[in-house]
Amino acid sequence: MPRHPLCHNRAVSGKGTHLTTLAPHHDGSPLYVSDSSPALGDVVTVRLRIPVGYGPLAAVRTRSNPDHEPEWTDAVPLGSADGWDWWQAPVTVRNPRHGYRFILLHVDGRVEWLNQSGLHQIETLDAEDFALVTTSPPPAWLSDSVMYQVFPDRFARSARADERATPEWAIPASWEDPVDPVMPARSQQFYGGDLDGVIDKLDHLVSLGVNLLYLTPIFPAASNHRYDASSFDRVDPLLGGDEAYVRLIEAAHARGIRVIGDLTSNHSGDRHEWFQAALGHPGAPEEEFYYFTDAGNTEYVSWLGYPSLPKFNWASAELRRRFVEGPDSVVAKWLKPPYNADGWRIDVANMTGRLGDVDLNAEVRQLLRRTMIEINPDTILLGESTNDATSDLQGDGWHGAMTYPGFTRPLWGWLSAPNGTPYLSADGEELTEPWFFGQPIGGIPRYSARQFVDAVVQFTAGIPWRVRLGNMQPLDTHDTGRFATNAAPGTVPLAVGLMLTLPGLPVVFAGDEFGLVGADGESSRTPIPWGSESEPEVAERMGLYRDLIALRHEHPALATGGLRWVHVDDDTAVFVRESADETLLVLAATGEADAELTAAALPRAAAAEVLFGDATLAVAVDGAVLLSADGPAFAVWSLPGVEVPAV
Amino acid sequence: MPRHPLCHNRAVSGKGTHLTTLAPHHDGSPLYVSDSSPALGDVVTVRLRIPVGYGPLAAVRTRSNPDHEPEWTDAVPLGSADGWDWWQAPVTVRNPRHGYRFILLHVDGRVEWLNQSGLHQIETLDAEDFALVTTSPPPAWLSDSVMYQVFPDRFARSARADERATPEWAIPASWEDPVDPVMPARSQQFYGGDLDGVIDKLDHLVSLGVNLLYLTPIFPAASNHRYDASSFDRVDPLLGGDEAYVRLIEAAHARGIRVIGDLTSNHSGDRHEWFQAALGHPGAPEEEFYYFTDAGNTEYVSWLGYPSLPKFNWASAELRRRFVEGPDSVVAKWLKPPYNADGWRIDVANMTGRLGDVDLNAEVRQLLRRTMIEINPDTILLGESTNDATSDLQGDGWHGAMTYPGFTRPLWGWLSAPNGTPYLSADGEELTEPWFFGQPIGGIPRYSARQFVDAVVQFTAGIPWRVRLGNMQPLDTHDTGRFATNAAPGTVPLAVGLMLTLPGLPVVFAGDEFGLVGADGESSRTPIPWGSESEPEVAERMGLYRDLIALRHEHPALATGGLRWVHVDDDTAVFVRESADETLLVLAATGEADAELTAAALPRAAAAEVLFGDATLAVAVDGAVLLSADGPAFAVWSLPGVEVPAV
Repeated sequence: MPRHPLCHNRAVSGKGTHLTTLAPHHDGSPLYVSDSSPALGDVVTVRLRIPVGYGPLAAVRTRSNPDHEPEWTDAVPLGSADGWDWWQAPVTVRNPRHGYRFILLHVDGRVEWLNQSGLHQIETLDAEDFALVTTSPPPAWLSDSVMYQVFPDRFARSARADERATPEWAIPASWEDPVDPVMPARSQQFYGGDLDGVIDKLDHLVSLGVNLLYLTPIFPAASNHRYDASSFDRVDPLLGGDEAYVRLIEAAHARGIRVIGDLTSNHSGDRHEWFQAALGHPGAPEEEFYYFTDAGNTEYVSWLGYPSLPKFNWASAELRRRFVEGPDSVVAKWLKPPYNADGWRIDVANMTGRLGDVDLNAEVRQLLRRTMIEINPDTILLGESTNDATSDLQGDGWHGAMTYPGFTRPLWGWLSAPNGTPYLSADGEELTEPWFFGQPIGGIPRYSARQFVDAVVQFTAGIPWRVRLGNMQPLDTHDTGRFATNAAPGTVPLAVGLMLTLPGLPVVFAGDEFGLVGADGESSRTPIPWGSESEPEVAERMGLYRDLIALRHEHPALATGGLRWVHVDDDTAVFVRESADETLLVLAATGEADAELTAAALPRAAAAEVLFGDATLAVAVDGAVLLSADGPAFAVWSLPGVEVPAV
Repeated sequence: MPRHPLCHNRAVSGKGTHLTTLAPHHDGSPLYVSDSSPALGDVVTVRLRIPVGYGPLAAVRTRSNPDHEPEWTDAVPLGSADGWDWWQAPVTVRNPRHGYRFILLHVDGRVEWLNQSGLHQIETLDAEDFALVTTSPPPAWLSDSVMYQVFPDRFARSARADERATPEWAIPASWEDPVDPVMPARSQQFYGGDLDGVIDKLDHLVSLGVNLLYLTPIFPAASNHRYDASSFDRVDPLLGGDEAYVRLIEAAHARGIRVIGDLTSNHSGDRHEWFQAALGHPGAPEEEFYYFTDAGNTEYVSWLGYPSLPKFNWASAELRRRFVEGPDSVVAKWLKPPYNADGWRIDVANMTGRLGDVDLNAEVRQLLRRTMIEINPDTILLGESTNDATSDLQGDGWHGAMTYPGFTRPLWGWLSAPNGTPYLSADGEELTEPWFFGQPIGGIPRYSARQFVDAVVQFTAGIPWRVRLGNMQPLDTHDTGRFATNAAPGTVPLAVGLMLTLPGLPVVFAGDEFGLVGADGESSRTPIPWGSESEPEVAERMGLYRDLIALRHEHPALATGGLRWVHVDDDTAVFVRESADETLLVLAATGEADAELTAAALPRAAAAEVLFGDATLAVAVDGAVLLSADGPAFAVWSLPGVEVPAV
C-alpha cells in the first residue's frame, strides 16, 4: 500500500467549507469503557470527552435504568488533552443488557442528553442508551476477521467433481454458462462447484487477506442453494462429503483462515429425513418438529408458503434435543473434531421460532449459543436478520447479524447510479424497477451522504457496541444484487473502503473482487471467472480489495476503535476510528469535498500520514484542518492515538 | 361553558406567521383504522390522507413485518375531500403486536416513510411502526373516563374516624397541620382520612365531572402511604375496613363513578403476613415469595434497599397462586362481589419480576390481566412505569401506564417558571434544586413548545395507539410535586387543557382543583382544604377544571379522535383531535401566537365555534386560517367532522 508524504502547509481558507460543530463524545470502545464484557455487579468506568470551552458545565452525570428504575452517578473531571476535557463515572452493571446515558448540566441551566443516537436537548429513549452486555463475549478473533462468503455451487469445481454423476433434480451447466434466474433453473441449474474446489482456491483467499470463510449450506439438498437440507447429519456428497469438509477446514486453518457453516433453524427441506419421517405419518416422533395442519400430516406451515421449506416448531423438546441441545446435537456436531468448524451463520434467524402468537426466538438463540459455549467457546454465532434487527441484537445470543439496513442499504442509496439494472423474476418476467432488497419502493432510493450517516446511526443506535462490532457489513451477498451492478462511476472504492473502516464485520461476497455484477440475488450467483485475474480491470479491483483489507489488518483501530463523525454534508462523510494507539481518519466523498475541521476535532493532524487515496489534508497554523478531494474519493490517514488524561 | 360567536372576517396577513407544512397523516383512530381490536388473521383496513398536490405519487404501500419478515400491500386511492386525497390498504394481522408503516413513492423517485414518529426520508425503525394489538382490549369506558386520584389519609376524614384509636406507628396530625416531609413524620404523620370521608365527598367528584376514582393503597400498613402492606386480604380498619370499601364502591357506582385500587406487585411491607411467616423461618412456604439472601431468612432484597419493602420473587408458583392466579387470588378477590372494584393500578409495575438477570415482568403482567378477564373483563389494568415505558406497553398486559416522560415531564418543562421551589429531603436537608421527578438535572428543564411536542411524539411513537389512549396523563400525582407550584404565570389553563385534550387518560390529583401546591411528592400530599371552595381563587380554579372536564365529556373526539399537529413553534402548539363526527381544534400558547394554516390543514374552519378560551380564529377568502392569541392562552374550537371519501 502506497504511503505518500503529507502536504500540510496549505492555508485553510474556510471559504465555502462546512464547519462541523464539535460535540461531546462517548462510544463503547476501550477509550471510553473500561470493560466491554463485565459480569453482573461489576463496576465499569465510562468516560466522556467534551470539547474544551463547550460548557461551562455544572455537572456531568450518568443515568442507568436497572430493572427499569433510574440510577444516577456523578462523573468527575479527569483533565484535558488535545482540546478535550475528559470526565469519568462509575456504572454498576445490574442487568445482562445494562443501558446508560450521559447528562450534561450547563451552568446556564441547559440540559443535554448523550446516547447512541447522539446529543439531545430533550430526555431520550431507553432503547437508544449506550449498553453494556454481560453475556459471554464473542471470541476476540471475530473483530480481527474479514469474512469471505462462498456459495459452493458457484465458487470452484475441483477435478473430483467430474467423477460425480449429476443428481436427478439438477440441470447441469457449464462453468461459463450464464446464470438462468427463471424457474426451474433458478434453483436447479447446477454448476458443480465443490469443497475441494474451495481448497484449490484457498491461496486466493490468502492473497486477498480474508481470514474467515463463510460457506452457504453444504448439507445434501435438492437445489443449487442447498437451503432445503435433506439432512443436517452429513455433507452433500456432491460437494465431496464429510471428508472434503474435514480437508477444507484443515487446509483453511493451516492458512490462518477460520470457517463457519450455514444452518437453517427456521425450516428444513421437504426431503429432510425428519420431515419425511413425519409427513403422512401421524404419531411419528418427528411430527412435533413441524406445524402440520391436518390430521394426516400432509399439510403444513412452510417458509413464506414454499412447500419445499417446512417450518420448524421450536416448542418441540425433541427437536431442541436433536438440533441444538448438548454434544450430540446438529449444532454441536460440526464444531467438534474431526470437523472443527469455527461457528455458524443461522439462516432466517429473524423468523426462527416465530409464528403468529408464538415467539420462541430468544429461547432458541440462547440455547444455540449455550451449546456452542459448551462445545467450543472459541466459535461465533451470527444470525440472518435482513431488516431492523435491533430487538434481537441485545447480546443474549447472536454475536452479530447478517443485516442490511444499518450499512448495506444506505450505502446502495448513497452510491448507486440513479437508474438500476432490470432483471428477471422467477417466472421470467422482466422487472424494470431495479432490485432493492425486495422492497417495492421504486428501485434504489437516493440517499445523500448525510442520509447515509443518519441511517447508519439510526439502525445501530439500539444495538450495544459489542454486538454492533459483530454485525456483518457486506456490500452484497448471495441474496442480493451485487453492489457494483448499479454503482455510480468511481464509487466502488468508497463502498469497499467504508465496509472495511466502519465498525462491523467486513464481508466480501466471492466474486466482488473480480468485479462481477448481478442485478438481483439470483443473477449475483455467477460462477467465479477463474483465469481472469490478470485482466487489467480485474487486477485493479482485486488490488483495491487487497490494499483495503491489508489496511484493516494493519490498523486494529479500524476493527475496535471508537467511531466519531467529524464532518458530514450532502456529498461527504468524514469520520475517525480512534484508539489510544492510533487514529484513522477516513474521508468518503461523492462530490467535491471541502471540509474544515477545528484543531480539536482532529487533534495532532500535522502528524497525519496518508495511507490510502488521493485527498488532501492541510493544517493551518492554529491547527485547523482542511480536507479536500475531487470526488468520488476515498481516503484514509493515520494520526496519533488519543490521549486520555490520567489514565 | 360559554360559547362565543366566531369572528372569521379578519384578513389573514401571513406576515410574521409560521406556515406549517401539510403532511400525510395516519394514526390509530377510527378515521384511519377499521378495527382497533382485531383478532389474529383478521384483515384490517388502514387509511392514509395526503394533502392534494403533495405528489404526484406513483404508489402508496404498507409494510408490515410479521414474524420479523417484511410483507407489503398496495394502497388504492379512495378519492378526495376537503383538500385531502385518501388511500386505503389491507393489513393482515399476523402477530399480537402487528406493526405497519406507510411508504409513499413519488413519481420523481423520492421515497417517504410514515410511522408513529412522523414522516421520514430514510427507512425507519420497527419500534416506531404504527401497531395493531390483538389482545383483549380495555373496556370502552376507559376512554370515557376522567380519573381522580385520592390519597386516602389526606383526602377527607369522616365522623367515624374520630372513634378510632391512632395506631402505634402513627404521629397524629390535625387536618390543618402542614405536611412534615422529614422522617419519621414523612411516612408516619397521620391525618386519619378514611373511606367514609371519601363517600362524604363523592358529590364533589360528581360536580367536577370525574368518573373514575383511583385510590392509593387501602390495605393495612405501617405508614400513611400504605405501600408497605401488611396484608392484601383486608382493608385497613383505620380506613373503615372492608365494609367501608363496599359502601364506597356502591356509593360511587350509584353516581356513575368507577373505582380502582392500588396493588404492590413488586414488594409487600415487612409486616406483611407472608413476609412475617417467612422471616427467620427457613422452610416456610412463603420463603420462596421473597429473595432471602442468607440461610436464616433474615436478610433479603428490598425495593431500592428499603428494608420495610421486601421484594417479591415471581419465580414462586405459590406466590403466583395466592397473588394473581384464579378466583381466590388477591387480584381476583377485590374485583368480585361484594367489593366489585373496577380494576387495578399496579405500583412499581416497571420493576415487578425484574432483578439482575431475571425478567419475569411480561409473565406477571399477562397473568394479572388473564385473571382479571376471568373474573370481570370489564375492568382496567394500569401499570406504574414512571420513565420510558415503551418496552412494557405493547398491549400484552397493561392497558396503559402511570408514566411521566410522554406528557407530564415535557409539560412541566414547557410551562414551568424558570426557578422552582426549594423543599426538604427525608432527612431535613433543604434542597434548592427544584424537584423534577427525582432527576438530578439541575431542576426543571426549559422546553419550548416545539420540544414539548417532540417529547410527546418521541415517547409515544413506540406505543400502539390503543395503549397510548390508556396512558395516564396527570399534571402531577402523590409521587410528584404539584404542577401549579412552579407553573409560569397563566399557564395552569394550558396544562389542564392539554391534559384533557391530548390522547390519554386525564388524571386529577385530588387537591389540584383547589389550587394546592407542593414542591415535591411528599409536600404535595396536603390534606384537602374542604370549606375553601367559595374562596375566589379556589372557585376559579375549580371552575376551570369543571369546564374543561365537561368539554372532554361532551366531545368524544377528545377521547378517541385522531391527533394531528397542525402548527408548532417555540411558543405555540396547535393540534386537532378528529373524528367523522367532529373536529376539535386546540391551541396552547405561552407567548404571542400567530399561526397561519392552509385551508387543507383545517378544513371547513369557517364553521368553527369556539368552545373555550380567548384566542381568535380568522378565515380568509381562500380558506386559509389565522390563529392568534396573546399567550398564555388555551383555546378549543369545534369544527365539522372529517369527511372520508367513499366510506
